[in-house]
This record gives sequence, structure tokens and C-alpha cells, in this order.
Amino acid sequence: MARTASLSGFPEWLPQERLVELHVLDTLRRTFELHGFSSIETRAVETVGQLLRKGEIDKEVYGLSRLQDDEDAARKDDAGALALHFDLTVPFARYVVENAGHLAFPFRRYQIQKVWRGERPQEGRAREFTQADIDVVGDGQLPFRYDVELALVIAEALSALPIPEFRLRVNNRKLAEGFYRGIGLTDTGGVLRSIDKLEKVGPERVAELLQEELGATPEQAKAALELASIRTEDASFVAQVRALGVEDELLEEGLAELEQVISVASAAAPGKVVADLSIARGLDYYTGTVYETVLVGHEQLGSICSGGRYDALATKGNRTFPGVGLSIGVTRLVSRILSQELATASRSVPTAVLVTLVDDESWTAAQGVARQLRSRGIAVEVAAKAEKFGKQIKYADRRGIPFVWFTHEDGRHEVKDIRSGEQVPADPASWMPPAADLVPQVLPAAAAE
Amino acid sequence: MARTASLSGFPEWLPQERLVELHVLDTLRRTFELHGFSSIETRAVETVGQLLRKGEIDKEVYGLSRLQDDEDAARKDDAGALALHFDLTVPFARYVVENAGHLAFPFRRYQIQKVWRGERPQEGRAREFTQADIDVVGDGQLPFRYDVELALVIAEALSALPIPEFRLRVNNRKLAEGFYRGIGLTDTGGVLRSIDKLEKVGPERVAELLQEELGATPEQAKAALELASIRTEDASFVAQVRALGVEDELLEEGLAELEQVISVASAAAPGKVVADLSIARGLDYYTGTVYETVLVGHEQLGSICSGGRYDALATKGNRTFPGVGLSIGVTRLVSRILSQELATASRSVPTAVLVTLVDDESWTAAQGVARQLRSRGIAVEVAAKAEKFGKQIKYADRRGIPFVWFTHEDGRHEVKDIRSGEQVPADPASWMPPAADLVPQVLPAAAAE
Repeated sequence: MARTASLSGFPEWLPQERLVELHVLDTLRRTFELHGFSSIETRAVETVGQLLRKGEIDKEVYGLSRLQDDEDAARKDDAGALALHFDLTVPFARYVVENAGHLAFPFRRYQIQKVWRGERPQEGRAREFTQADIDVVGDGQLPFRYDVELALVIAEALSALPIPEFRLRVNNRKLAEGFYRGIGLTDTGGVLRSIDKLEKVGPERVAELLQEELGATPEQAKAALELASIRTEDASFVAQVRALGVEDELLEEGLAELEQVISVASAAAPGKVVADLSIARGLDYYTGTVYETVLVGHEQLGSICSGGRYDALATKGNRTFPGVGLSIGVTRLVSRILSQELATASRSVPTAVLVTLVDDESWTAAQGVARQLRSRGIAVEVAAKAEKFGKQIKYADRRGIPFVWFTHEDGRHEVKDIRSGEQVPADPASWMPPAADLVPQVLPAAAAE
Repeated sequence: MARTASLSGFPEWLPQERLVELHVLDTLRRTFELHGFSSIETRAVETVGQLLRKGEIDKEVYGLSRLQDDEDAARKDDAGALALHFDLTVPFARYVVENAGHLAFPFRRYQIQKVWRGERPQEGRAREFTQADIDVVGDGQLPFRYDVELALVIAEALSALPIPEFRLRVNNRKLAEGFYRGIGLTDTGGVLRSIDKLEKVGPERVAELLQEELGATPEQAKAALELASIRTEDASFVAQVRALGVEDELLEEGLAELEQVISVASAAAPGKVVADLSIARGLDYYTGTVYETVLVGHEQLGSICSGGRYDALATKGNRTFPGVGLSIGVTRLVSRILSQELATASRSVPTAVLVTLVDDESWTAAQGVARQLRSRGIAVEVAAKAEKFGKQIKYADRRGIPFVWFTHEDGRHEVKDIRSGEQVPADPASWMPPAADLVPQVLPAAAAE
């Protein structure tokens, strides 16, 4: 598990590690589909113009050029050049606009794909990594209820993973912006960007930034920081905000929205979904609810699942497609699960049974036995050579295959559990391994002990 | 289905089309796992030096450069530059060498990922596409039996897909090279490259090429073409080759190997696996068995599954890792399935049931009903707003959701099949939809009619 990637920032897993990742991906897919989200994939490649439409993130983008062509490298001033996507939200917005005529709205989709960012790699930050996104997008309008629903879906999805406790922290841009406006700070975007630095630089420095860069008075800075200090596991944040004595229409709207999310979600998933008024999210396109998620005890890993409500990310002429969505950092999660052995796979191969050979001519008959077992969902390999049984058993042991099958010359079949050594008669038409041995199990560390 | 990609060569599917692709991917994964192949993924990015190690294909490679860096474009003379992989075989060989100490040999893996080639797009040839590969790699040596086994696995995998009849055509490089040597043509690689053009330019032109470019006599050219004309559904090709009267040790070895593959596979999958002595495969690294696959009636689509035995693709000092593998062109297959409607999904959403709302306050209770249904694997959406029932039903209809659920004010539950209009009492703790409605079915066109 301590291997380093041969190319920094581009992690690869061993087969047994990949089983943990597959378990995470399968669990997410299953949860999303049970909630009616359709799978889509977008191409890995977008035009530079499309990617930079929302600004800010250009330095992280990988441009493409054909090796043989002696083409110039893709540059950010060449809108038609091709580049790799750096998230799944921007490509999804394009997909919705392009295919609006073929989609039924509100359109619910999940999307699990690799994305690329040319950043300096560090723990929790790779250059190639997998994201798992869910979004609901409406045509013209999208009821607020979806902001509540998505918190529930994500809490359910994360609860099903072999990870430590998490906190889904929710805030609302309207609440924050209304509050700043209410205390007389008009550059609300600027205040949000300063508040976003809270965890990194601390409240004193943020207070200085607010005064130096945005011309806030000490009182205004203090009020903004007081708001950001409010964290509650239920809707009591409403009273705490009111106690600050600020009045603003947008603030009221935001309070009512956040109250809805927190009161429903804290009933459904107590302690897992909390109000945290310090959450700002850097991206400009969020317009209401914002979400961020930390693993308890692994806060320095950063957010493992973030998102929010966006009212104008996708537009087509006068038509807008408001949406709300979240993105799970699968690679960040899986890297942590693997590096701290929070969960492990019960074996490294799918194979449950190795069918041995009594002699080289029995290979075709052995394939017949294997076919019968596979028809019941049992993963089977057939030995390639009729080596001594001891050698064939050793092969199974080395690969972590729990059972070996013997077909004797008189036609009797036996199966041996090579862990216990127990060997019993078995019928290829009906034998089943114990449920726990049928497919590799991925178990949280505590359960595995 | 007649939509064109917004970026030529980079196809994207609608949700209902994606269900067909998912069905293909799930079927392949299941077959591969039942045969004991482990899943791995390699990074999408390799160094240029790694990619060009086997020569030939440099013009198709996409190099990477960071947009913001004003870096030069990746060039083929810069071995350390990054580029996107163009297949899964070369990255797999690197993975095996890097991780040899952590793998149990013979190592069986499947790998389903996107690859990129900057070629001119046309039907069946995209710039971004998905491949599904299986390979078995040994440490030092790999029994020939795996060449037979892989033909069986691939025939089983392809037979499980909603595609027309296929022919897996098998040949053997040793057979061909031994034959050419036996008739006095020493540049066997050159002959193979000419024979590879047979389908494209025809036998007369190939005969000319052999004489013009390789100095063959008319008799030698004729003999090489006679060999390439041999196609049999059983092992009778052996007698046909012998009838040509050429003697060579390597030829004999190749004949024996190909006979093994064809006699076992033609018994297991009659008519599906055939000997075709015209198959050459362009890639230099194949050293024995070579495979190619066509869809009957869709031959102009090109091969949908190709591969072969390679003895020296992966090496680490003195250590070699010989292997045999095949690669299925998933995007090529899925494009054809979709464009000719060879199979379709029974609905476009995973959702089986829409839980309606009698009033806006009933949303939380409706989530409870949904939770009960989901616990039995039923995909459920809850209406976001308590619109008139007719409108809620229309929403389900528009999205293709087959059932709507009603919870009346007196607590009674009913479920309606909106296709038949039948509405019956139902218990959220036990109701199940018919098996065919539980998840979207992907059905071949004939079965769907």
C-alpha cells in the first residue's frame, strides 16, 4: 500500500485495491439509480472556450495537441483548441444545452468519470482523479425541494461507504449575501472570498482582509465573522442569526431555505447534515444552497463532497436551466481508505474456485465443470496444466482463491476449502460456496478485525 | 439516434442510449469476472517515450501541455512529455513491469477504459472511445492453453451481447512466417504487411506488391495468396495447408497451435470461432496466435475484437512477461447497435415508481414510502410539488416511469400502472413490480418486436 505512483499525481491501484474502489463506485451507482438518477458520460475533451467560460480555473487545464502534427500547444486564447475537462459540472451544463430537446426535465443524472487538473500533487490532490456527481436540472425553474432531496441522497450514499463518520455542512449564499448587504458590505462576492479563507488563515487575518481589501469597518468585519462562526446540528442557527439583529429580504429568503434543508435532513440523518455558516465555496456560479463535506478525524483531507445550487450555469438563448448538484471526490476518498486501511477486500481475485486437472486431456471436461459452476454466478478458473495437485493447490493459495475442485478419474467430484483444509464431495450442478465467499467482500477495518 | 456529435469523433449518448452501453459494459464485466479476471485501470496518461516504444503509431497520439504554462506542445522527440494512451495493451505492459512484485502470475486482468487517437473520424472510428481488454500474462513463460481459453472467454462474452452473429477469425504468426520462410520469402514481416492489405486492395494488387516490394517470384506470391485463402470452421485447414507442400519447423509449430485453438473452440462455439489464414494484424508485437472478429453482415465496420499472443511486449531486465489478450471495441459496437437500433432500452430512466404527493406537507411521509420501496431494490422518485394528480402522472409518463404511487389522506396506499391504467391497493412494505419492470431491460431488436 506504500507504493508511490510512477508518475506523480497519477495514482494507480493494485487489483486488491481496485476492488475497494469498485465497491465504492458500485455502491454510489446503486444508490443514485435507486433514487432515479440516469447515468450519462460526457467526452473527456472540451474546447478551451467552453472550459474557460466561467473563468478562474484556467491554470489547471491540460490542453491537447496531436504529437505528429507539429501543432502549437493548445493555449487559453485559442477558444477552439481542445483540452481535458477539469470537473463534470461544466461539461454537464454543455450537454444539457446541446441535448435539451431530447431530455425530460427536471433531468436527474449521475456521472462518474475521470477528470484532470495540472495542479501540484499532494495527499488528497491528484492530477487525474475520479468524481461521482449527481445533479438535478430544471427547464426555466427548479423547485427548492431538490436542494433538500440532494442532501438526503448524498447522506445516504456516503453512509453506505466504508468510510469514517462524515459531516455534510450546508450554508446558503442568499443568507450570507443578504447578511453582508444588511450590515452595509456591498461587495458580497469579495466578502465570500475572504470568508472562504477562514480555515486556512484564521479569523484575525480574515478580519484584516475585510478591512484592508473591502474597506469594512471593524464592526462590519466582526459581524461577518460572527455569522461565519454559527454551526448547529438543527435549525437553531435561525435564532442565532436573528440575534445578530440584521434585517434584509435576501437574508430572510436564505434563512428559510437553509432551515428547510437542515430541519428535514437532521431528522433523516441526525448529526450527519449540519448548518455551517462559514461555508462559502469558491466557485462563482453558486446562487443559493452550498454543500461541503468532511470526514471526521480527517478534516485536513479537505472536502470529499461539495456542490450547491446554480441558477444560470446552463443557458440557451433566453432559456435557463437552473440546477443543484454535488460531486464526490472518489479518488480522494479511496486514496484515504487505502492509505489508512479503513477497508480491505477479502481477496484479490474474483475467482472463488480453481478447477484442477488430473491430466492434460481433462482440460475440456474441466471447462464443462467450470461452465456449470459459472451458470450459478460462481467465478471459476481452470488450471492450465496438469501439474501435481500440490502445485495446483499452491497456485490457488498464491492467488487467494478459496476453493479447489477435483474431478477424480472415477468421475467423483470433490471440493476443498484450502483455508480449513476441509474436503467434501460436491456436485457441479448444485454446489454453492458460502455467501461470504461467492464474490470478494469489501469490509470496513473494524468489521474485518 | 441521428444526432451528430458536437465535436466530431467524440460521441456522447443520451440517457436511453447510455443504458445500452451500460448493459454491454456490465455484461462484459460479469463474464470476465466469472472467468477469474481481475479489474484494473491504468492512468489515461503515459510518457511519450513509453507510448512510442513499439513504434509505428505516433501520428495518432494526443500530447498534453498545461494551458497556463506557455509550455511547448508535447512532441514525439520529447520522451518525458505526457500524452494520452491510444490503447490499453501498452499501458498494461508498463503496469505489469512496475508492479510485478505485487502480482500473482499468471496474472489475469480485464480493463475497460477510454482511449484516444487523433485520427480522421468516420463510422466505427472515433477519436475518444472505450475498449474492453482481457489479457493473461505469465512470468517468464505462459502455457499455450491460455490462447485457447481466451478464444472461449471472448466467444462467451460476445455471445452474451445484443449483437448480430459474429465470427472470431484466428490465425497464427508462426504458421504464416514458417510458410513464407518455407517458400523462400525471408522478409516475413514484409509479407505479413502486404497480406494485411488483402481485404482493402484485393489479391491481384497484393501479388504485385509482393513482387515489386519484396522481390517475390510469381510462384512465391501465388503460394502466399493460396495460404491466405484458406478458411475453415474446423481443423481441416491443416490438411489444406499440407496440400500446398511446404515444409518448415515453425510452420509445423504454428499448425499445431492453431489446430488446438480451432478444434477446442469449434466444439464449444460451433461456427463462431474459425480458422482464417488471411488474418495478419498490423502490430509487430504479436508472435503466435492472432485474433480478429467481424459482425456478420457488418463486415465493413472492421474488426470489433482483436488481439493475439505477444512474447516480449513487457520486459524487465532479463525477465520477460509473455501474454495473450484481446480487446473489444465497445464504442464501435455500441455505435452500431444504436445507429441500426439492434437493441433498445425498455425505458430511459432507472426509476420504476413515482411517489405522488397529496399535499406539500406529505413530502416527508412520501420519502418514507420511497425508502421502504428502495430497501427492496426498487428505484423510486418522489414528486417535488403537490400538483394535481393528473400533472404528476403526466410527469411520470413523460419520463417513462411505469408506476405511480398514491398515499391517500386516510392512509391507504395504491399503485397505478400508467401503461394499462390498472390501479390496485399496495403495501409499501411488500409490493414489488413485475421483474421486467424492476430495472430497465436492454432487448435485442428481434425480441423487442
